[in-house]
Amino acid sequence: MDDRELLTIVREVAGDAQTFDDCAVIQLGSCCAVITTDMLHASTDFPRGITCRQAGWMAVAVTLSDIAAMGAAPRYILLAVGLDQPRHLKKILEGAVSCAERFGASVVGGDLDAHTELTLVSTGIGLVDPRSIVRRSGANPGDVIAITGTPGRAQAALVGYTQFACALYEPIPAVMEGIALGKAGASAMMDVSDGLALSLYDLLDANDCGFSIYTAMVPLPPEVPLDEAREFALYGGGDFGLLFSIPPGLLVDIGISYTVIGTVISDRAVLLDGDPMPKRGYVHQWNG
Amino acid sequence: MDDRELLTIVREVAGDAQTFDDCAVIQLGSCCAVITTDMLHASTDFPRGITCRQAGWMAVAVTLSDIAAMGAAPRYILLAVGLDQPRHLKKILEGAVSCAERFGASVVGGDLDAHTELTLVSTGIGLVDPRSIVRRSGANPGDVIAITGTPGRAQAALVGYTQFACALYEPIPAVMEGIALGKAGASAMMDVSDGLALSLYDLLDANDCGFSIYTAMVPLPPEVPLDEAREFALYGGGDFGLLFSIPPGLLVDIGISYTVIGTVISDRAVLLDGDPMPKRGYVHQWNG
Repeated sequence: MDDRELLTIVREVAGDAQTFDDCAVIQLGSCCAVITTDMLHASTDFPRGITCRQAGWMAVAVTLSDIAAMGAAPRYILLAVGLDQPRHLKKILEGAVSCAERFGASVVGGDLDAHTELTLVSTGIGLVDPRSIVRRSGANPGDVIAITGTPGRAQAALVGYTQFACALYEPIPAVMEGIALGKAGASAMMDVSDGLALSLYDLLDANDCGFSIYTAMVPLPPEVPLDEAREFALYGGGDFGLLFSIPPGLLVDIGISYTVIGTVISDRAVLLDGDPMPKRGYVHQWNG
Repeated sequence: MDDRELLTIVREVAGDAQTFDDCAVIQLGSCCAVITTDMLHASTDFPRGITCRQAGWMAVAVTLSDIAAMGAAPRYILLAVGLDQPRHLKKILEGAVSCAERFGASVVGGDLDAHTELTLVSTGIGLVDPRSIVRRSGANPGDVIAITGTPGRAQAALVGYTQFACALYEPIPAVMEGIALGKAGASAMMDVSDGLALSLYDLLDANDCGFSIYTAMVPLPPEVPLDEAREFALYGGGDFGLLFSIPPGLLVDIGISYTVIGTVISDRAVLLDGDPMPKRGYVHQWNG
């Protein structure tokens, strides 16, 4: 059983609407909030050798990335800490607070518990003008599809290209980019943390159209042999860039860096260089 | 090291304001929201023999209880599940959704992760008229101090009085009571999940006054020998009642059941029958 199979159970019990986007959207009075929660723990989510400060940073960064993927500005973070060693707490919190503050958010609450392995659950609330919310659905044939940043760097670091260690240990959520893309009118968006291929398939699930991208258009981690670099960029996980579709006419003066990698098509398929793209990437496997 | 010592580290890094109340209070446009997060896991939080459905219920109930303690109406729940066995997921979610819906909230999002022991982190958002927010601070000498429900039932169940099993396995958060007390003008409030004594000491920390209660006024779990019943009610943990102070003149027609157990005094002390009350109850202990 894998994550995506378990998700069908969630949809059965909790409903469909709750599972398609990076965040839930709630209307609070006149204002729109997006909320999301992410659980990370030592044995499956934190790369070997990560420091406590970096673990705290990462827990907040994944949540900020989900908020950015909706076009929202992160504002409030809650951090639940399942603590393996009391002496780790201070550095974890310092990392969390510093990541939140760097991107305009505050850590406003949390919980503490003793745990056999370090477990961090961050919950984030972002605010957004309802007109600027971007969901996973909304793509239209004729839109271009683009990404922010260079995918594959985290995966490259994971297999030993230490020059990309920052991408793995101190990821930078694309907060400014997400807000700008929401205002610019991106039609669909999500973050690419499970890898570019699986993210495109997630967009396929959420839309009535398809996506056609080209290997040669995808930016690659530099100074890595071409075959490996392409593997990392297309199928590697752990990156914090945003994948989005947008009508090409809106890509004017949006003030952020991005790379167009293909187009939205009417066929219900994900194509790489014209052929169906292999559906593989980062997926948790479950026993039992 | 215990929970309360670790809290001083949290206050050092994240600031004081974030740690005194059951929830963080945030202003969202014209509306006021309270948010809180709670981490529960198998080895330290779930009583032996709990079912998956009950674990899901309990995870949401602790969060609803924190929201109720601020006088707010719970609206949105996020549930992060660190899952030991994939086959447990459905029942856990059913318990969570049913607890949320019973008290007027919806499960709007969450996360899934594989974990060696079942770990549930629920985050809740409640809404409240700013004039009805009740914090831990705000008590004044001359207020009465009162509780909802009968404390000690969960502790009694834990040591084998099976007639109170529901209090332990399917706790009922005092949601209606919290909302009513917020509207009625309670001056300070919190839930008593760490036990009555420790909760009174928490109120002492948050206020410039003290609290004087009387054993004979505290309602006791019935059909339990008196000495034991008093021990459970004063020092036992796991109950979901609310402890609050309120000017006695406001205790008219508030439409809920409560028991006055003492008064707020100007001395900076917690007194039981006129003597300092032992400061003991449910505290996590940490190694290292």
